[in-house]
Amino acid sequence: MADQYAQTGEDKRPTGMPVIRWEEPPEGPVVVLLDQTRLPAEEVELVCTDASALVEAIRTLAVRGAPLLGIAGAYGVALAAVRGFDVDEAALALEGARPTAVNLSVGVRRAVAAYRTALAKNGDTGAAAVAALVAARALHREDAEASARMAGHGLELLDELLPGGGHRILTHCNTGSLVSGGEGTAFAVALEAHRAGRLRRLWVDETRPLLQGARLTAYEAARSGMAYSLLTDNAAGSLFAAGEVDAVLVGADRIAADGSVANKVGSYPLAVLARYHHVPFIVVAPLTTVDPETPDGASIEVEQRPGYEVTEVTAPQVTVTGAGGGIPVAPLGTQAYNPAFDVTPPELVTAIVTEYGVLSPVTAEALAELSARSRQVPIG
Amino acid sequence: MADQYAQTGEDKRPTGMPVIRWEEPPEGPVVVLLDQTRLPAEEVELVCTDASALVEAIRTLAVRGAPLLGIAGAYGVALAAVRGFDVDEAALALEGARPTAVNLSVGVRRAVAAYRTALAKNGDTGAAAVAALVAARALHREDAEASARMAGHGLELLDELLPGGGHRILTHCNTGSLVSGGEGTAFAVALEAHRAGRLRRLWVDETRPLLQGARLTAYEAARSGMAYSLLTDNAAGSLFAAGEVDAVLVGADRIAADGSVANKVGSYPLAVLARYHHVPFIVVAPLTTVDPETPDGASIEVEQRPGYEVTEVTAPQVTVTGAGGGIPVAPLGTQAYNPAFDVTPPELVTAIVTEYGVLSPVTAEALAELSARSRQVPIG
Repeated sequence: MADQYAQTGEDKRPTGMPVIRWEEPPEGPVVVLLDQTRLPAEEVELVCTDASALVEAIRTLAVRGAPLLGIAGAYGVALAAVRGFDVDEAALALEGARPTAVNLSVGVRRAVAAYRTALAKNGDTGAAAVAALVAARALHREDAEASARMAGHGLELLDELLPGGGHRILTHCNTGSLVSGGEGTAFAVALEAHRAGRLRRLWVDETRPLLQGARLTAYEAARSGMAYSLLTDNAAGSLFAAGEVDAVLVGADRIAADGSVANKVGSYPLAVLARYHHVPFIVVAPLTTVDPETPDGASIEVEQRPGYEVTEVTAPQVTVTGAGGGIPVAPLGTQAYNPAFDVTPPELVTAIVTEYGVLSPVTAEALAELSARSRQVPIG
Repeated sequence: MADQYAQTGEDKRPTGMPVIRWEEPPEGPVVVLLDQTRLPAEEVELVCTDASALVEAIRTLAVRGAPLLGIAGAYGVALAAVRGFDVDEAALALEGARPTAVNLSVGVRRAVAAYRTALAKNGDTGAAAVAALVAARALHREDAEASARMAGHGLELLDELLPGGGHRILTHCNTGSLVSGGEGTAFAVALEAHRAGRLRRLWVDETRPLLQGARLTAYEAARSGMAYSLLTDNAAGSLFAAGEVDAVLVGADRIAADGSVANKVGSYPLAVLARYHHVPFIVVAPLTTVDPETPDGASIEVEQRPGYEVTEVTAPQVTVTGAGGGIPVAPLGTQAYNPAFDVTPPELVTAIVTEYGVLSPVTAEALAELSARSRQVPIG
């Protein structure tokens, strides 16, 4: 199927991809994942029959993206419980699969908590397993709903900022259904614009070093039938200069209390270019991304990733040769500066779109107020 | 030798690489080239015994870079003449090897003109062949001298702008001895700073899509024993934000009469970042780069290069699979926006360093004046 699509350039399938799903075939329940390491060359599903298969899938990045990891973790706990394995042991292994992924841990704990509460209540492991699955499904559904709400709020904002319609949106990294229980964050807004007939073009930054834009966002855009073009990250400047960008939409890894946005490296230069060219720079992220414990941008510690991500190129089809499993493109021994993300200060962020509404201008006060309101009232 | 260097991380050889040279072994004269398509994995020399071998080397990018192409073209004419081949036929083939490379054509014509003048004077093809070789060597030497002068003027400017010394310089693409008869343009300035003990670090942009920074500039920096680090183009923003860049040094493909600078794509975003962070953005280029026929930046037509440069990754060791000879990293059928260069307006250029001195601020008047002066007085 993947090959057929690739060869014809057409896609007659529905756009909703089964990135993760719970299935109950006669042989027993399983978690089915789209193997993201094989994209865009091949669409292959991984069927996980136990938590350890899921641990392996998380470890090898077959499943990735903060919200999606949480959902996968919760399903993993449910799977262990339903199949009668040790739930605490499974939870520990799942959490340890990617220790720095906060969402993973949160998802795992939510399912474990549901399991324990049910077990304490009536002592029935079967009912407790069902409770864990219900919790996983609730997390999945909530994430999808949050995506839908962000998409709606985001498109409203675009239409307000750019009343002419025919939006030309530049995006960075991968923020669609491959990282989410729903349709994602920034990408979901572009998709909403596309469905409303108001997306003229999606400009997709390739997003070095791991090429999530080229590999994943281009894949999602193609699947959804959007008009899109891929570009090297450094060609974005030419697009701005030519007046070809109406808005920049990105996600966020973490938002500090002052509104500083940590996101995939390359976001900050886009924010500076957007400011220089008077183009809105819009961050789309669920309110859970806001970390009140981090007061400002300077408090965000920037993780340095391995140099081989820069000094080697990798692709699913590449034969392993270098230290990082890729092909060396720089002289051996070359040091690389490879920050995982960068920090955009609030004064360069036109708006933050959340599932609870739009924040603009971005200030510490407005952010605190929205967070407080989100704890009091249901999503709306 | 290349492997030994790569494995030990040390370089005991002199830093002057034989990128191009004329040799006269007993079997007859040859032009020897460093095969740039094999860098940085291997250092392999190509020995061209006739003009057609040189044409092939130019066509396959074994030899590249505007000034170096001119020198190669002139030596090619000399080689045909000395070996008794048809000079006009060789000149035509050499010029046609890369039709858009202006320098190539200029170098070829200069050697042909010397040949014809000498032939017309005394009717001796032997003496005419010597005249062609003298012309090629003169071009080679002049280019090396221009590099040395730019390097000197550039370092003076750096020391003036940054009196503290310990320069941390960010550069883009490849502008060193691999493109020049001497040590290049922007890279030559960094090298001069290194030799003077005033280079703290050279930040090397990898320069997607063709990775000239990773492949070639990192190679030259390593060969010269400079302290350098490689980064993805989009990580430059983080360096600026962290205050780690003292100056940006780039070359130029063409400079319009108003001082607008066309250079490798990715230069303009660096200029915007530099301005936002109050860091000097310095262009280093010989005065021949100034094109008085191009009035301003808007008049520069930007060439779009093939999309496969973006949708596929290539490396010397990669097995051919995609349309462009690389490995597909985006879905098949993906359109790419792939401008060869971008245009930086004069107001974002702190200075233009030429072999005739430094231009700052960059204005149409100052540029015209420097050009006029260069035609009147010898280089100094």
